[in-house]
Amino acid sequence: MGCLHDGHLSLVRRARGCVGAKGRLVVSIYVNPTQFGPAEDFSRYPRDLKRDLKLCRGAGVDVVFAPDDQQMYPATDGACSTFVVEERLSRGMEGASRPTHFRGVITVVAKLFNLVQPAVAVFGAKDFQQAAIVTRMVRDLNFPVRIVVAPTIREPDGLALSSRNRYLAGELRTQAVALWQAIQRARAAVRAAGRPVSAVALKQQLQRFIERQPAARVDYLEFFEPETLKPLARVTRGAHLALAVVIGDTRLIDNAAL
Amino acid sequence: MGCLHDGHLSLVRRARGCVGAKGRLVVSIYVNPTQFGPAEDFSRYPRDLKRDLKLCRGAGVDVVFAPDDQQMYPATDGACSTFVVEERLSRGMEGASRPTHFRGVITVVAKLFNLVQPAVAVFGAKDFQQAAIVTRMVRDLNFPVRIVVAPTIREPDGLALSSRNRYLAGELRTQAVALWQAIQRARAAVRAAGRPVSAVALKQQLQRFIERQPAARVDYLEFFEPETLKPLARVTRGAHLALAVVIGDTRLIDNAAL
Repeated sequence: MGCLHDGHLSLVRRARGCVGAKGRLVVSIYVNPTQFGPAEDFSRYPRDLKRDLKLCRGAGVDVVFAPDDQQMYPATDGACSTFVVEERLSRGMEGASRPTHFRGVITVVAKLFNLVQPAVAVFGAKDFQQAAIVTRMVRDLNFPVRIVVAPTIREPDGLALSSRNRYLAGELRTQAVALWQAIQRARAAVRAAGRPVSAVALKQQLQRFIERQPAARVDYLEFFEPETLKPLARVTRGAHLALAVVIGDTRLIDNAAL
Repeated sequence: MGCLHDGHLSLVRRARGCVGAKGRLVVSIYVNPTQFGPAEDFSRYPRDLKRDLKLCRGAGVDVVFAPDDQQMYPATDGACSTFVVEERLSRGMEGASRPTHFRGVITVVAKLFNLVQPAVAVFGAKDFQQAAIVTRMVRDLNFPVRIVVAPTIREPDGLALSSRNRYLAGELRTQAVALWQAIQRARAAVRAAGRPVSAVALKQQLQRFIERQPAARVDYLEFFEPETLKPLARVTRGAHLALAVVIGDTRLIDNAAL
């Protein structure tokens, strides 16, 4: 969705590693309206194509594909009425909080795959559920694309890089580190316990910890099996934690293996 | 879905015309379970791959792609959970009578497009709504495929060729010509009127006509605008008629421009 940061540029480097020096590396930049809910931040989502193009050039990108809405969703001859939906992995977490989000995401990803026809596509692990659902779509619909998921890049204090971090002024930026601190606490708790830990109890403890920050409200905290995204009642090493927290007006997500 | 007849072979000839003598012509033969409803004829649908292969060879087909269910819908690692849905053109007619039918059809067509990667794909006009929905899917999801719709092939008495015609024994075969006769009656009525004709009145008249056949029961009769599939209250030349009629235990469909 553009407004590129070092997380995106790490995906570019990973893609270059996949295709080699002579491969053609395409970056798509498109703030896709259909993945935003009506009350979400589509209109204020940060956009800076001029800066993005400069960063892409500097990173050795061969093509930037930056269509406009009329190209992606032509309004002539009736609006688009075809969608790609995933009905298992997309039910919980982001899918529960944002009901039409993943339909919008995988529909536009299918369109981009058909337009760009990549051999490999690189997605960031920061959107863990999204990467899992795209991988599932590729498998279920037999898209001739290999999906690579590249690790989350973080600020020195642990905050996961996100274009939405720009929304965090002053004190809010300090409070936002609570997501990463909660992940570390969960990891420490699971490793110290030496036996399965109750997910309910750990969620309560982490929620209390996060909401000690005055501007923070937990949207969800979920422990799950990373392949199937199935929620876990008892948490052990190897389980995955994902969380969404609203800091002021800004909704942030993060995740990690424990 | 195989059990090939002259209608299918006319699609093969049309495809050869599209790609030329040196083009590679692929026929997919797959009785797709996900487009059949639970009470429909999936298990008894006619299959004769050996005969189909012979007919394809005789027609100059280069490749027959005839996967099995385990290849198309691998059950390992969880069943398929991704679907392609079309929400406007698929609401009426076949979509109303067979609620999950088009979801099954366009999902498997998307899979076949991704597996075979054709430049051109030929569909029969006999399944008019299906061809319209596939065309819409290709447009909406930007599949790099050109869709060609080839005309319905008919028996000398007008019955549209269909693999399901095999189900029609003796007297039922005679009664099945009522679909084509109803189309001709509608065409004659619209042309004779010289002004728009009430769709409700014409439907009633045609239903009475068809159900004079003792084994015939009309599922639906619809007059609609052929691009958008929007039902018409008043019928003029150029309107499209589609109908589904159950003859005994066999559900037949047909359609034509008036």
